Amino acid sequence: MTRLQLTHIQIDNYGPWTVEPEPRREMDLQTLQSRLFADLAQFIGSRDGYVFFTRFDNMVAVTNGLDQQDHELLQESIRNRYPITISLGTAVDPVPVEALEGATEQVQEAGSAQDRSRQEVLTGNYRPPEAGDVSIAHFDVNDATGKYTDRLNEFDSFIRIEQSYASLMRYMREEHGALSFFVGGDNIIAAVPGMTETEYEAAIDHVSDDVGVELKVGVGHGPVPADAGIAAKHALEDCRYDGTRVEFDGADH
Amino acid sequence: MTRLQLTHIQIDNYGPWTVEPEPRREMDLQTLQSRLFADLAQFIGSRDGYVFFTRFDNMVAVTNGLDQQDHELLQESIRNRYPITISLGTAVDPVPVEALEGATEQVQEAGSAQDRSRQEVLTGNYRPPEAGDVSIAHFDVNDATGKYTDRLNEFDSFIRIEQSYASLMRYMREEHGALSFFVGGDNIIAAVPGMTETEYEAAIDHVSDDVGVELKVGVGHGPVPADAGIAAKHALEDCRYDGTRVEFDGADH
Amino acid sequence: MTRLQLTHIQIDNYGPWTVEPEPRREMDLQTLQSRLFADLAQFIGSRDGYVFFTRFDNMVAVTNGLDQQDHELLQESIRNRYPITISLGTAVDPVPVEALEGATEQVQEAGSAQDRSRQEVLTGNYRPPEAGDVSIAHFDVNDATGKYTDRLNEFDSFIRIEQSYASLMRYMREEHGALSFFVGGDNIIAAVPGMTETEYEAAIDHVSDDVGVELKVGVGHGPVPADAGIAAKHALEDCRYDGTRVEFDGADH
Amino acid sequence: MTRLQLTHIQIDNYGPWTVEPEPRREMDLQTLQSRLFADLAQFIGSRDGYVFFTRFDNMVAVTNGLDQQDHELLQESIRNRYPITISLGTAVDPVPVEALEGATEQVQEAGSAQDRSRQEVLTGNYRPPEAGDVSIAHFDVNDATGKYTDRLNEFDSFIRIEQSYASLMRYMREEHGALSFFVGGDNIIAAVPGMTETEYEAAIDHVSDDVGVELKVGVGHGPVPADAGIAAKHALEDCRYDGTRVEFDGADH
Repeated sequence: MTRLQLTHIQIDNYGPWTVEPEPRREMDLQTLQSRLFADLAQFIGSRDGYVFFTRFDNMVAVTNGLDQQDHELLQESIRNRYPITISLGTAVDPVPVEALEGATEQVQEAGSAQDRSRQEVLTGNYRPPEAGDVSIAHFDVNDATGKYTDRLNEFDSFIRIEQSYASLMRYMREEHGALSFFVGGDNIIAAVPGMTETEYEAAIDHVSDDVGVELKVGVGHGPVPADAGIAAKHALEDCRYDGTRVEFDGADH
Repeated sequence: MTRLQLTHIQIDNYGPWTVEPEPRREMDLQTLQSRLFADLAQFIGSRDGYVFFTRFDNMVAVTNGLDQQDHELLQESIRNRYPITISLGTAVDPVPVEALEGATEQVQEAGSAQDRSRQEVLTGNYRPPEAGDVSIAHFDVNDATGKYTDRLNEFDSFIRIEQSYASLMRYMREEHGALSFFVGGDNIIAAVPGMTETEYEAAIDHVSDDVGVELKVGVGHGPVPADAGIAAKHALEDCRYDGTRVEFDGADH
Repeated sequence: MTRLQLTHIQIDNYGPWTVEPEPRREMDLQTLQSRLFADLAQFIGSRDGYVFFTRFDNMVAVTNGLDQQDHELLQESIRNRYPITISLGTAVDPVPVEALEGATEQVQEAGSAQDRSRQEVLTGNYRPPEAGDVSIAHFDVNDATGKYTDRLNEFDSFIRIEQSYASLMRYMREEHGALSFFVGGDNIIAAVPGMTETEYEAAIDHVSDDVGVELKVGVGHGPVPADAGIAAKHALEDCRYDGTRVEFDGADH
Repeated sequence: MTRLQLTHIQIDNYGPWTVEPEPRREMDLQTLQSRLFADLAQFIGSRDGYVFFTRFDNMVAVTNGLDQQDHELLQESIRNRYPITISLGTAVDPVPVEALEGATEQVQEAGSAQDRSRQEVLTGNYRPPEAGDVSIAHFDVNDATGKYTDRLNEFDSFIRIEQSYASLMRYMREEHGALSFFVGGDNIIAAVPGMTETEYEAAIDHVSDDVGVELKVGVGHGPVPADAGIAAKHALEDCRYDGTRVEFDGADH
């Protein structure tokens, strides 16, 4: 059974900051947001966790393997180097969305995202990693380069990818409590509970029926996101070579 | 009449690079992509252009005000500091998607995105900036913090924002040839042709009917994206104070 | 005759900030400082200027080609993305140290580096670039890899380089009003007034006599630092191929 | 007794890369070098180690607390995100320079710094941290702002700091096998063996006699650099409040 540890990362009082004393240059905001995300990706990623940019002012991380001290150090380091601070709520559950629900609640209970006096919430439950705690599903689009990138203008390619993402993210959330994130290119990475091959087939069929985009998926497991994620990538490579739609990492069979 | 100069930025042969000799750590790829975008945002943004991350391996920029020499310097600087190179195609048109169509074609004509021998395409048409060349529409969600961020778990908040984006981006593309980009938080920025207040109302109504999310929009004009974008932000602040749904910058009336 | 435009960049009230409310983690400070420098290098460098890290909390830039509006935009962009702000004083003179003297005075006249109420000084004189305004001398150590890097422990290699730098920087300042900066490896780059081959020979001899390290130098000229600097690099390559100690760029003969 | 674990970080074949196929823009090289250092500072620093930029193409880190797996991950992450690779040699010794000697030798034995076929050396000895393994001395200049920064032009201030650094680094190396690094502002941080108050007084006197700059120093101890370094900073604050020249952290008395 999976035991996902999810962390909700929220920039404190960010919305007001972006327009006070008057609206800041958009490209500076974009730079700030994407570099903050990059720093989180390095900090969390080099400790074998995964973080997703989501809305940039609110991000979601799978943090199995990182304890409270790691979260505290991350918070301190951001405060030392950015004009903003971050709050961090963490919770553990077999179902990804339930873990996130717990994580978000801890941040919300401390005050509003736009409460000036609420800063640097740091609260939650952490779990020492065990085998099989994390499942990651890595989806991509079949022949996106040949069908879209090399043929359509970039926005029309992007629309295809975006619509497939919008369709998959909602389906996986509603049917399985899984959290799916677009990570660039034609790639979607999901934190998932235990799911069968048939269930993955159904998800792919749903997107195909809904928006006409054909996906495939590799699924990996491990004690921490980096292990599960790399196993998922290898499984996805297997799909590519074998022309299959769903592959699980070897440990699974 | 608007005269948008659009640049299609494509990382050369990126997909294969991410899995050779074997799949690279996902958080390193996320770091690379987001820092590359941040560097483009600084280079283009400090020359008063706008760039959007789109799919990260393919990005779209509104580059009115940047000439060929600027594009060449950008390409050289990326080559000097990253393990990857970028191709740049640029074109000008009154309708954003037509400009992008021209930009993408120039890159495509030089070879596939996954052609190993195609590197650093640099081609296109550039236009000296003139008043009114660029229109930017800045949308956001009414009370996103109160309705979503402070109430729902972060993924369910994100689903609302994401579905509204998926709906708006398609509508604006199909009805007006406009290009809409999610830029974080609850914000969507669009490169638009001339559009009337009624047309913006219709777009907002479409999203409300389609996915139940209420948007508002500020619209700005200028010779370059930074001017138009800041004017749009001020117009959006007007919406906020006046409780209106569509506001144009002063120059418009 | 050279006409150097020098900018003194000073982080406002930085010393106190690093220890309040208590001393901050040193590696966070190192990250902040080096990334700030990198951002200045990109902003100034992509406009064909040069910036040197000097003491990191105070930096020196050769900014021929950047006007007041560029300086203002730089200041705004740093404020938008860092927890600190910067002051900028600029002045022009045929002799580098005189230009810097003027630049520093403008910052000092506005208040102390540790005056809490002094923020974002922006003052100075700027000069449209003309041919020959800037001379750059690029020194390196003869066979540093063979003599030091591949033989000594890294600190003992570094001592040799450091002592040669300490010797050269003082000599060039005192004899010629030139400003010499260590830029990594075995490289020293100097903003120089007009100097003859004999004067460069004397500088090299001084360092050899003083600390026993053998240097060579390429000298370049141009309207802006990037042009002069690349010409200097090519001249230094000429030294390498021809076994000479001083070379000027072609324009010079 | 101290037990310093030193790592020598060397960019592989960097010199030739900077000039091939022709000399690269200096500000791009400066950006690359300082961002690489910043990334090392975050990776090593967030694991409680210290890294110093030294020559940028060769850097020195105190890595007590980082094991081989950490070094391997760092090497992989740099390879994934930069156009260059790094070699890492590590050794342990009570005397800092002896540890570095061992570290450098491991890199040198694998080939020259400019050997094209030598890439990503990763070799060394690592030590689990124990109390008292690391001593850090943090020096700064008495009233540098009042005496120099607010009075002299920036280069003449810098000369004072630089000459004091050149004097101290050599003295500490020769007398004690200590490694002293300029870290910006008026700060010098040294990895030191056990040294008495009298020995620190003598070092400060040496610099005062040699170049007329007055230093003070705080000394800290700990199992890892971050602990020792923060203790040293607090001891230096004690000097500031008490007007003393040498202070040790409390654990010392």
